This record gives sequence, structure tokens and C-alpha cells, in this order.
Amino acid sequence: MEGNAAKERAMDAGRMLETIETLSSFNGTPDSGVTRFSWSREDRDAREWLLHVLESFGLSPWTDGIGNIHARLKGNMPGPAVYTGSHLDTVRHGGRLDGAYGIAASLEVLKSLCEERALSGKDVEFIAFAEEEGSNFGLTCLGSKYLAGQMSLGKLLGLRDPQGRSAAEILRSCGLCPERMDTERLRGGAAFLEAHIEQNAVLEQNGRKIGIVTAISGMRLRKVTLRGKSDHAASPMRGRRDPAAGFAECAWRMEQMWRDGSLPEEFSCTVGSISCDPGVGIVIPRSVTFTVDMRHVQPRTLDRLWPSIWGMMESVAQKRGLTLSCDLLSQSGGAEMSPVLTGVLADLCRKKGLPHMMMTSGPAHDAAAMGQIMPAALMFVPSKGGLSHCPQEDTAPEDLAAGAELLEAAVRHAAGCRT
Amino acid sequence: MEGNAAKERAMDAGRMLETIETLSSFNGTPDSGVTRFSWSREDRDAREWLLHVLESFGLSPWTDGIGNIHARLKGNMPGPAVYTGSHLDTVRHGGRLDGAYGIAASLEVLKSLCEERALSGKDVEFIAFAEEEGSNFGLTCLGSKYLAGQMSLGKLLGLRDPQGRSAAEILRSCGLCPERMDTERLRGGAAFLEAHIEQNAVLEQNGRKIGIVTAISGMRLRKVTLRGKSDHAASPMRGRRDPAAGFAECAWRMEQMWRDGSLPEEFSCTVGSISCDPGVGIVIPRSVTFTVDMRHVQPRTLDRLWPSIWGMMESVAQKRGLTLSCDLLSQSGGAEMSPVLTGVLADLCRKKGLPHMMMTSGPAHDAAAMGQIMPAALMFVPSKGGLSHCPQEDTAPEDLAAGAELLEAAVRHAAGCRT
Repeated sequence: MEGNAAKERAMDAGRMLETIETLSSFNGTPDSGVTRFSWSREDRDAREWLLHVLESFGLSPWTDGIGNIHARLKGNMPGPAVYTGSHLDTVRHGGRLDGAYGIAASLEVLKSLCEERALSGKDVEFIAFAEEEGSNFGLTCLGSKYLAGQMSLGKLLGLRDPQGRSAAEILRSCGLCPERMDTERLRGGAAFLEAHIEQNAVLEQNGRKIGIVTAISGMRLRKVTLRGKSDHAASPMRGRRDPAAGFAECAWRMEQMWRDGSLPEEFSCTVGSISCDPGVGIVIPRSVTFTVDMRHVQPRTLDRLWPSIWGMMESVAQKRGLTLSCDLLSQSGGAEMSPVLTGVLADLCRKKGLPHMMMTSGPAHDAAAMGQIMPAALMFVPSKGGLSHCPQEDTAPEDLAAGAELLEAAVRHAAGCRT
Repeated sequence: MEGNAAKERAMDAGRMLETIETLSSFNGTPDSGVTRFSWSREDRDAREWLLHVLESFGLSPWTDGIGNIHARLKGNMPGPAVYTGSHLDTVRHGGRLDGAYGIAASLEVLKSLCEERALSGKDVEFIAFAEEEGSNFGLTCLGSKYLAGQMSLGKLLGLRDPQGRSAAEILRSCGLCPERMDTERLRGGAAFLEAHIEQNAVLEQNGRKIGIVTAISGMRLRKVTLRGKSDHAASPMRGRRDPAAGFAECAWRMEQMWRDGSLPEEFSCTVGSISCDPGVGIVIPRSVTFTVDMRHVQPRTLDRLWPSIWGMMESVAQKRGLTLSCDLLSQSGGAEMSPVLTGVLADLCRKKGLPHMMMTSGPAHDAAAMGQIMPAALMFVPSKGGLSHCPQEDTAPEDLAAGAELLEAAVRHAAGCRT
């Protein structure tokens, strides 16, 4: 009766797509992708709408001290709950699927479970996370780190946005009470399951419909400043202490270290931002500031490799009479996903005839923070052309539906529901 | 009677220092160096003051169509005039000597000549040039290029400042009439003589008081853009089309070309400004734009060397799947100074016991444009620590005075005055 049971529970994919469309209407830049920063006007409108939807399911949703929205469906089995969800915020000029897809899929799973007379398994809790993208303070996954106890209250309250407003000020102006962090912190759970778009073209290129993530990369984002001696561009080359030339050598050598195998193949390092002071064409800069983003699935590897990159930069700086300084702007620890849950997802894919593959995730996700306190799993659906964080972000509706159905089956399995 | 004659004509160095101080009071940033952009409020106040000073000498000064101020002392010898002067404008947060020293010295020479009953030589014309620094439109030596016929009226009127205001609009708002360019253009002259601070530490390091410039470097300032493919910083290194990595290789290889002798020792190339779009730490940029400033005393050499640099950049771009484009932002032709006048200056230094040296000038000066239409000479006094274009710019008062006295002697010689 497996086939019939699955059919009875067939998800309402149309309603899920409508949810995605509705979420994309809460948008600060309607003519240019979706922009919904946590705690903005658009975000507050979106949460109000989401609370109403959850109430319409017969649940009693609540908002925690950082702005994550929770809704729990009681099951008839004791023990820790199964959690599912994704994030409500977007980058600036982002797409309509990053975060919103996982929210819509988890919401549909919850709706489907609510429609049964009684949940024949563990409690299932839906979470819409705040501030995964780090758009306010440059720190990613704040909502999930809040719940997983991965950030102190003092650090959270002291964060400042580019306008200089503190997190304390912003959260309080939204009526949130971050001081509840310690009591709201989750100490464990049966499982966390998240659906997300891939943000790359690996699934598309391999003709697969589902990516099962085995590990999420750790990340370190640093700001490095090289200081030298400003001078007129007409001064002789010999004897210069030019930080722009020093930067070029540092960035080129860093890439060479990867090319010659001194850094692992699956490691990545990126210079995303470069600025010169004063930044005038006819003046040798007095300083150059640039970012270095490093990724690897093993955070230990990241911390082991940085000294070799830094040592290279120090020797370049010393040779050129420059001074070097560095700030760690942001980091995420990375996480192994639960082998049990990834195995469950793979089995379900096989049963459903869904072509799938195991993969790692470069970008951070809330599943990494949640994975610190309970078994966690993350599954991807394909992104057309691998585009993400842009208005062109897209996934075929049938792929979105297949992913949501897989998520439902996995949540039911983790909750111990009778199928 | 050489000694007595020189003594009679001893320059009033105190008055020249006062002139420098007065000029530095026409300043848009009184707490942070001197900022006097051409056609600004401060500049208009400075020219009004300067016109009064010239009238107080008994002369009839006039302002030309771009804002250069002229004052001519008639001599009793026929033929083309001798010109002397420097520029009235400064960079943002500049020093009190760059330009102002040459104005004050030439003004003192003129005053000294005016105080004689009759000028026993050719006409001597003082010029305070506008817009040498290029602060408004990024193009240097506009005032002298206007007089030397090195710029078309159409090009001048079409220039736009960073706020988008056209030169036509700005000049007319100051009551200037640039359409007079063709009638005001100088077709020749007996000599042009300019005194200036060195903007480098070569004189100081060599213990000399006077630098006699044999040639002024030509300059080419270009903006180069590398375009690739933006992506999340978590994407794999292999297969990236990263314009920041491409920039680093281009800038590093350009410097290597100089180090390995593919570019001449006395050539210089500088990256002064770099920007990434979108310039976010966790995003591979879609494009990187940077400036390349090239200098050499022979403009032909500059034009011969650029294709080899550009060819290197093209091959880096091609290898990395990037596209490359380039705009010429600014250029100055460079100029040989008059061997006759540099010889005169050297002889006068020897007579006065002033330790001097021959040198080239990296920075552009009005003497380069004037040198296109008449024999020109440029002399430097030492800058403490080589600092220039900054509030710390300084020269010992006795060095300023010695330079002005040399300038006076050279102007008298060029005008054929009886000593």
C-alpha cells in the first residue's frame, strides 16, 4: 500500500509555489530582484503574514529573541522534536528561492502533518530563521547560531551595521528581546532537516534532481591591510614602498599556492573587495585593503592553512618595506551532516526514483549551526545555470515539488511516523 | 661691480614668504592642508587678491578665457616677451608651496623689475596658471595647454567634473569666456621660466639646493577593466573566471617586466586605484577596474611600451576567460627643456655658489606645455623629506629665497636686461 499512502499524502505543490510568490512580494526592491533584510519593514510584514499562516494551521507560533519564528506540532511520541525550516531573509537584489524555498517546503510539510487527525510520531517544529545571509552585520547564520548557542549575548548586542546602529538597538526597535537567548537556546533535538536551492550548477551538469549534502564548508573572512609610503606616481620605481604592488604579489602568490598543490584542491580562497587609499590614479597608495575569503569542509584545515598564507604575505610585505595587519571579519565553523540522515535521504531518493548525488556545500547554511546540537541534513534542488544571489535565480517547478516531497518523507521518517 | 649690483637688486624674501602665507589662506580646508581647486570660491578670492597686488605694481593685469591671470611689464627692447609663473590651484589637502611658491617667486621678480625706472630688456609677462593639478576634470595643465594650443575648444567645453558639471558651465559661472581660446593662444615667446618645489627627495639626498630640469616626463593614465564571472566565494577554484585574480597577475607581471629589464629603468608604472564590482567579501567580483599610470621622459617611449604591457594583459585575460577593456583618461606629452636656458641656469648657480644638479621631472608641469611653443626652463628647490601634495610639504625659507633669486637672475638674462 506504499504507493497509495504516498498518493494520499501528495503535497500541494501549487500552494507551495504560491507561498514562494507571496514571500517574494515582501520586497524592498520590487524592480530589481528580492531584497528582504532581517528586521526591515519588508521582513516585518513577511513575518506578520507567516504568523497568520501558521495560526491558520491551528498552531500557536511564537517569535524568539532574535526574530526566528517557531511553530510546533505536537506528536504522540515522547522525546526530542524533529526540526525543519530555512531562512526568511535575502541578500540585496537576491532571488525569490534562496531561503524562501526551504521555508515554503517546510511549511507545506507542516501543513500536511497538521491535516492528519493526530501526528503519529515525535513533535515536529517549523523554524523560519532570521539573518542567515549576514546582510546587516556581515555575520552569517545569526538566527541559527542564536538557537545553537554559538554566539554570546554580548557579542550579538554589540554588532553594528554599516550605518553604525547596534544589533541591540535594531532588535529592540522590532520589539524583540535578545536577552532571552539563554533560555531559548536549544540543547538538542532528534533531527534538523533543511531544503535549499543549490547555488551552483553541479546538479544540473550531472543531470541529478537532488543533492544530499555530506558536509558544509567552514568559512573565514578576513580583511587584510598593507601599508606603505604614498608618493607621486612620477617617483622612480626603485625604492618604492607600494602597497598596491605588494597586494598584487600577495594575491597572485596565494592563487599559485593553490595551483602548485600547497593548498588542497577543494580549498578555495577569494579576494572579493580591494580598495586603495587615497585611490587616485596619479598617486602611489599609502595603503591597500582587501578581503580574503577561505573555504574548506574541515574548519581545522582552514585554521591550519591560514598561517602558510599569512607567512607568504608577511615575507612579501617585509621584502617590500610594507606593514601588514589583519582582522577576522566573519567565520563559520562548517559541519559534517548526519550520516544516518543522509543515508535516509539517499534511500528515499532511490525509492522515489529521484536521481541524486552526494556533495558538499561551499556556502554556509543554518543546517551547519543546527548540526552542532543535533543530527542535521541538508538537501539541494538544482539551480538553473547555477545562478544564485541574483534576480535570475530559478528552479523548475517540478524540481521544487520533488524536493519538498522528499523533505516530507524524510521528516516523517525522522519523526518515526507510521507511513 | 657684479656683487654690488646683485646686492642692490636683493630680493625681498620676507615679502615673498608673506605672499605664500597669504595664498595659503585662500583655502577650502583650513584644518587639513590647503585645498584650492580652480574656479572654486577660494580660487576666486585668491585671484581677486592677486589682481589687486598686480595693480599695486602699476600694471594692468587681465584674466584670459580659462582663468589664467596675466600681467605684462613693458620693456624697451622689441621682440617676443619672456614669461614666468606657475599655477594657483592645489590638490585636495595639499601643501602651501606646490604652485604657490612659483607664483610668489615670479611675482617678486616682477615687483623687482617694476621698481626700476624702466625695464632695460624685453617685455616680461607674469602668468598665474589655472588648473594645473587636474583636480576638476582629471586633466592636468589645462591653463597652460589652453595658452599653448594643446587642446581644442570642443574638448575643453565638454569636460565634466565628478558631479557631472561641464567645463563650459563652470567657466561661464565664473564670468570666463573660453571661446576666446584661439585669439588668446600664444604663438611663441623668448622664454618661459618656472620655479617649483621638487616633490621628491633627490636634491635633499644629494645635498643640492637647485635642480635644473632637463626634461619633463610624459604621462599616460589609463583605466583598465577586467570582466569575468561573478559567483559565490564558496564555488570551486577550478573553472573560475575571477577578474580579481586576473588583476593580481596583470599588476604583478607589469612590475616584473620592469624588474627583468623589459621596461626601462627610468620608466615608471603605478596602479593607484582598484575597485571590484560588487566588492563584497564573499562574492567573486564580476569586474575589477584599475588605473595604470605610466611615465617616461620620451613620450615616444611611452607609446612604444604600452603595446607590450597591453599584450601581457591580453594574454592573462585570455588564459583566464576574462575580457579586457581600456580608456585613456589623461595624457601629457612630456617635454625637453631648452638646453640654452638650462645652461644659463647652471652658469648662474655656479656664479652664485649654489650647489645644483641636472635632473628630470616625473610630475607634469606647466613648463611642459609652454615648452611646446617657446624655449622653457624649470628649476626645483628641495622639499623636506620629499613630501608633496600633502599638508607636511615644506622647504627651508633660505632655499625658497635662493631659488627666487636665481629665477630673477635667469629672467633678467633671458630678457636681455643690462645686469
